[in-house]
Parts: sequence; structure tokens; C-alpha cells
Amino acid sequence: MPTQFDPPSGTRDFLAAEAEQREQAFAVIRSVFTQYGFEPLQTPAFERLDVLLGKYGEGGDKLIFKILRRGEHEASGQADLALRYDLTVPLARVAAAYGSQLPSPYKRYAIGPVWRADRPGKGRYREFVQCDLDTLGSASVLADAEALCAQHDALAALGLPDFSIQLNSRRVLAGLLKAFGVPEELGAGVLITLDKLDKLAAGDVISELVGRGLPEGAAAELVNAMTAADAVDRIRRVLKLSDEGAEGLDEVDRVLSLVALQIPPGRIAFTPRLVRGLSYYTGPIWEVVASGVPGSIGSGGRYDHLIEQLGGPDTPATGSSLGVERILLLLPGGGAERGRLDVAVTVMAEDFARQSFDLAATARAAGLRSSVYLGGSGKLGRQLRWASDQGARWCLIYGSTEDEAGTVTVRDMRSGEQTAVPVGELGGYLARVAG
Amino acid sequence: MPTQFDPPSGTRDFLAAEAEQREQAFAVIRSVFTQYGFEPLQTPAFERLDVLLGKYGEGGDKLIFKILRRGEHEASGQADLALRYDLTVPLARVAAAYGSQLPSPYKRYAIGPVWRADRPGKGRYREFVQCDLDTLGSASVLADAEALCAQHDALAALGLPDFSIQLNSRRVLAGLLKAFGVPEELGAGVLITLDKLDKLAAGDVISELVGRGLPEGAAAELVNAMTAADAVDRIRRVLKLSDEGAEGLDEVDRVLSLVALQIPPGRIAFTPRLVRGLSYYTGPIWEVVASGVPGSIGSGGRYDHLIEQLGGPDTPATGSSLGVERILLLLPGGGAERGRLDVAVTVMAEDFARQSFDLAATARAAGLRSSVYLGGSGKLGRQLRWASDQGARWCLIYGSTEDEAGTVTVRDMRSGEQTAVPVGELGGYLARVAG
Repeated sequence: MPTQFDPPSGTRDFLAAEAEQREQAFAVIRSVFTQYGFEPLQTPAFERLDVLLGKYGEGGDKLIFKILRRGEHEASGQADLALRYDLTVPLARVAAAYGSQLPSPYKRYAIGPVWRADRPGKGRYREFVQCDLDTLGSASVLADAEALCAQHDALAALGLPDFSIQLNSRRVLAGLLKAFGVPEELGAGVLITLDKLDKLAAGDVISELVGRGLPEGAAAELVNAMTAADAVDRIRRVLKLSDEGAEGLDEVDRVLSLVALQIPPGRIAFTPRLVRGLSYYTGPIWEVVASGVPGSIGSGGRYDHLIEQLGGPDTPATGSSLGVERILLLLPGGGAERGRLDVAVTVMAEDFARQSFDLAATARAAGLRSSVYLGGSGKLGRQLRWASDQGARWCLIYGSTEDEAGTVTVRDMRSGEQTAVPVGELGGYLARVAG
Repeated sequence: MPTQFDPPSGTRDFLAAEAEQREQAFAVIRSVFTQYGFEPLQTPAFERLDVLLGKYGEGGDKLIFKILRRGEHEASGQADLALRYDLTVPLARVAAAYGSQLPSPYKRYAIGPVWRADRPGKGRYREFVQCDLDTLGSASVLADAEALCAQHDALAALGLPDFSIQLNSRRVLAGLLKAFGVPEELGAGVLITLDKLDKLAAGDVISELVGRGLPEGAAAELVNAMTAADAVDRIRRVLKLSDEGAEGLDEVDRVLSLVALQIPPGRIAFTPRLVRGLSYYTGPIWEVVASGVPGSIGSGGRYDHLIEQLGGPDTPATGSSLGVERILLLLPGGGAERGRLDVAVTVMAEDFARQSFDLAATARAAGLRSSVYLGGSGKLGRQLRWASDQGARWCLIYGSTEDEAGTVTVRDMRSGEQTAVPVGELGGYLARVAG
């Protein structure tokens, strides 16, 4: 319904069921990250424009939502602020601003919306939530393994049925290029092409590599090594021939060994052809994939120089990011529709409104969600229909009969059975039947 | 520290303690609102500019953060979107967009940031969280009482020590003006002046009323009636003389009667001089005040025509809003500093890193927050200092001695006492001592 009342293009309204599901998922993720000793960081929705510009490449700059200057400056048509584009640049700013006030290492998570003026499309939004955890100030592979395990545990805690983790290292890739004699100046381009091995046929990848300047023999040898049935074993052997390759392999094996207790065997595998598009990674890299979903639902890696490039201090860093919007689509049905109320309370006459109001309070005090009927009809049938619409488990009826008897009628909305309960015993009664 | 790394003027970074305190407070509020059967609504951070413009008066329009058009249109210097200024206009848009898909009445809460380009000042921010609940589609005073009680319960659940509620009705004010012979065309101005009775001396208020065109005798009579020791009784008597006044009084008394079980006596009082600045209220109105805080920490009231004026359907409406930023300042200390970890795990040598990593996982599986040491030092003293900095209750030590014995040393960080625990029994041991 593209009407004047829709939310802006690329954004969404979340009504009850979706809003609840999202809130619950974020709470689960927060709880797992906290278990690992990561602490929350919340930064403003917007940053000064100069903090963001030039950090995301030319293409990125165009996707930044800029905020017009205000007051007398509005007419200038210039912007001075911009909506945040990710949670990493704000992290770099915070690391620069608070320096030694932050714990060392600084382990923080952030869950919040970011905004990108991308062309909206299927599953692509202009406002979407990112969910990052990062450790600044540790060069240890333990920090990489921790970022990976925390991400894994969050996915498991969310109840995601079927996912797996592809692990590699930038050093493995460097060793591979060396082993296959790829000239250094062609390295970046060759990696971009190899990243397409799960989309293109081997022959097409070889052609593209040749187009990039690689001799045909070397290109074929490289692609064959990576696509053979025993690719991982062959590459392990090849890597051991260079220092860089051996170091990369050792890095991968250390991560695999560290996470072995926590990540079930078979769920994580050394994947030499995993490249990750972004060039800023310096150590272990990984992606989480789920069956039936194109692309990844999470990723991570070590990026030892990025924080400095983004304006922060020079610090080793590693982290992971959950594709939480995609993950939400994979989770079982929107909020399991548990109904709005546990106990719906009728209002049979204005004279008894006060008693009905108090009965709802009694139900809430017993830990149940409860509210009175707020409509204008005094008819029981109409009010029972409302109680049913609310998904209420019980409906309380209080009219003149009950008033004389000092009781309240508790109607079981499933069975239709009605029980007269003395008003003073309602709290205990509800706690008992709801227990 | 006004540096280039500060967040933009009027916005804040929330580091761990503050972020946690805020998150917890919002969770408490959500839980109370849910108990009353209110459901969440989340709308985008920005709306189309035309949805917002003209809704907040001329002064308000100037405070809206506008977003520059993008791509080829950026050079025009024009805006097409704007950051939301409150949560009420988005509610009106949602009511218009989803119409009969929404439950009736539609009881929703919303907790989220809004943005206003106000001059930043003490306690005045450009990005701040609003926390609203509203019921659309019920004309019943039960809905007003419910909005009031839910707000009250949220404040009580947050642990706010000392607050009280001033209750009035727009009809009481209309009746008062009638009773004291205030001409209808002077009514709005007279109310604005009467609203100053708790700030200005009675004489000054009388002068201002005379300046507004009220005869001196009438002005003095009105002010005396409202400031006398028995003001409420006198005004009750006066109100009974007009239909409008009697209706208003009845409305106030019905609310007082409905909430009597839930709001302790003495915490809520009929306050005839409460005006509430905004002119859109049509029925009961209230403000929550806390000792030591100027202004209110919450407010609410019935506003039967506002949703239509804001572009939504014509529907009766009532609601309340918590001044959650002010309330957070009143709550006891920032997060009670419980420490980042329960269990800190040393890494005594690279050879034992895997075991340390697994021990941390075991502690987490026992429900404790735990992480390994991520620094480069192999010295126990340095690592114990780290454990202490994390606020850890226990520190696990695993070196060659423990490796040979098949145990882990559990150090109680309060007493310094150390216990050797068989590795396989660590989970049970920690669960027991932490229980």
C-alpha cells in the first residue's frame, strides 16, 4: 500500500509482533555478549559530517544521509551532520575521545540502527540494525577466537537451526598468492576474482584471472588447487612452503583449536577460498552462512590498522558483526502470537467500573497481563468477543450478581467454564491456575 | 573536553555503566506497560518532511532536523526527510496507515529517541529518549485512569523514591473560567497566566491577568480562590454551580476513585491550578512532579482531536509520557558498578591458552560472565591486576602445576584464598560458590 501514510521509502514500521520479536532477539544477543565480558556502547544517531566523509570510499559517501544546517544557515543548503553509516566509525571516534578512560583491552558491543541511502530492494533497507562486537587493544588470537565464539553462541541462543562458519586468514591468502607465483601487484585483483569461485564456473574464473594478467598455466593451477576434492589438504601442503603461508595456517589452526569445545565439530571449517570483500582485514577472517540464504548472516575478522585509518588511535583490533536483519527473517514466526492479555476484565456497568479496574490491578499484581474493557458497550457477548480478540486466557466478569455475592466470575476462555471466586481470593486463585 | 572527537553538540555517548542503566530502565518500563496490555510500536527515525512540518507550530518547525535530498538532488540544498520530533506524529501516521488492521482500541507504547535542534543546555539535549503510551479509540475515563496508573506503576517499578501526581481536567478549567466570569475570548490567555501561580507571587499574577483585560476585582477573586488554604474546597463548591464545572469535577473524582487502589493516598491530588501548556487536551490532565526537580517528570491527558489534526483518523485518545531522561538522573548511581566479569581467566603460557579458553566457556555455561586475559604479559601479578580491574569475583589460574595435577586454581578475589578444583568439576564448583 504505497500511500501518503507509508513510512519513508526503505524504512519500516514495526507493529506489536515484529517489534516484540526484534526486542527479544536483541535481548538474547546482549545477554550472550555480556556473558563474554563485552560492554555496551551507545553513540548518537548522527555524527559531524567530517567524521563520516571519506571513510567509506566514494560510493559510500554518496549513501550517507546528510542533515541540513539549521536556522540562518539552512538557506545555504549545506549539511553539517550526517546519520551514522555503520557502528565502526563511531567506535573509532569514541576510542579517540575517551582514550585511557576506556578499559584495556576495550571490549564493546553495539546494537543499533544505521542509515544508508541505498536503493531500497528485497531485504535491503535504508534503516537497519547492526549488531557489532569488537575488541580494541589486543593482538592475541584469543581475542579473535572470543569474537568468533561470542557470535556463534549468539546465533545458537537465538535458536537459528542450521548455520556454519567458514574460517580463513588474510595470511593464508598472502601465502597462497606467493606459492602460486602471483606477482604482488596483481594480488588484490586475483583475490577479488577468487572470491567468485562459489558463484562462477571454474573456467570463467580462470579466464578472469588471465584477464587480470596471470599466465594461463598459473591461473589454472591456482583454481584447480582450490576446487579439487582434496583442496584443503593440497593447500595446507602448499602453504607450508612459505613463511607467510605457514604462519597463516598456524593462525587458522590455533583458532580452530581454541573454539573446538564451543563450536560443534562440522560447524566450522578452514575455507581457503574465503576472501571477504573488504581489504582492511589483517589476520583471521570468517563468515557465517545459513542454508537457504544467499550471502552471509555474519562475519568477522582482525583489522589491526582500521581504527587508526578511521581517526582513532593506532590499536590492534578484531571483531564480528551479525547480519541481524537477515537472521530475524530466518527465525521461526513473528513472535508466536501469545496474545495481548492474560486476563481480560469486563465492565458490566458504570457502577462497577471501579471494581473491574481493581480486579485488573489484582491480576497484574499476580504477574499477569491484564486490562479492563475500554469500549462503550455494556453487553457481555460483545465484551467476551473483545476478550477473545485479546487472546486472553481468562475473562473476569463482575456485575450485580457478583457484587451482591462478593465474588467475581472467572471464565476460562478455552473451556468456557466459569468459576465464582471470592473477590479477596482472586489473586491467589489466578496465581494458582496460571502457575 | 570540547575536542574534535566529542559527539555532536547536544548529543551524548553512553559508555558501559550509563548504557546499562538506561537499558535496564527501559526494560522495566516496557515490562510494566506490557502488564497493562499496551503493545510496542517502532517507527523509523525519520519521516517525510511534509508529515512533520506544520505540526509543532512555527517555533517547532525551526527545531526539526531536516535531511538533505540525495544524489543529483543534493545540490538543490533541499530536504525531503526529517528526524522525528516526537512519537505522537508517527503514531498518527501509523493510525492512518494501518487503520482497521490495528486492534481497537489501539493501546501502544513507544520508547525511542527523538531529535530537536534546541539550543543545548543543562539537561537539554538534541537527541533524547521519549517514552509514551497512548490509547486510541476509547472515550472512556477508564482509559485515562489506565494511562495514569501504568505511568505511576512504571515510576514505582523504577524505584523512584518520592514523587506525586497533580490531577485536573480541562473541563474544570473551563468551569472555573465560567464561574469567575472570564470572557471566553480571554480564556486561553488567562489559563497561561494562572499556570504561573507556582512560580510568581499572587500579586504579579493578578497584574498579569489585569494586563490581559480581566477586571481587577475578578482577577483578584480568581487568584485568591486558587491560592487560599482551602482552595480546593472552595473551587469544588464553585464548580458545582455550572454544568461544565460539575462535569469536570465528576471526571476528576472518577479518576481519583478508579486509581485509589493502585496509587497510594497522598500521592495524587486534585490540583485545580494545573493547566498544562498545550492547548490540545480535552479531558483529564495530569503532571508528575518529584521533590528537588523543577518542572515535571511525566505528564498525560486526554486529547480527543489531536490525532485527526496530525493527519490521523478522527479518534478519541488519551495517553501519558514519562520524562525518562530526567528520571534517569534521579535514579540511584549509574549502574551500581557490578564489574565487567564474574570469572577472569589467566593465560599463563601459550601452551595452556586452549585450556584457559575452555575454562572461560565452562564458567559461562555455569551462568557466569567470563573471559580470558587478552594481553601480552605472561606474569601472574599483571594478570591478577587485570582480573581485579574487571571487578571479577574469582580468578582461574591454569599453568604447568595445574596441568600436571589436572586441576584449576580458583582464586577468591575478595579473600585471596585459592582452591585447587579438578578441571572436570569446575562448572559445578562455580555454580555452588556463586549460588
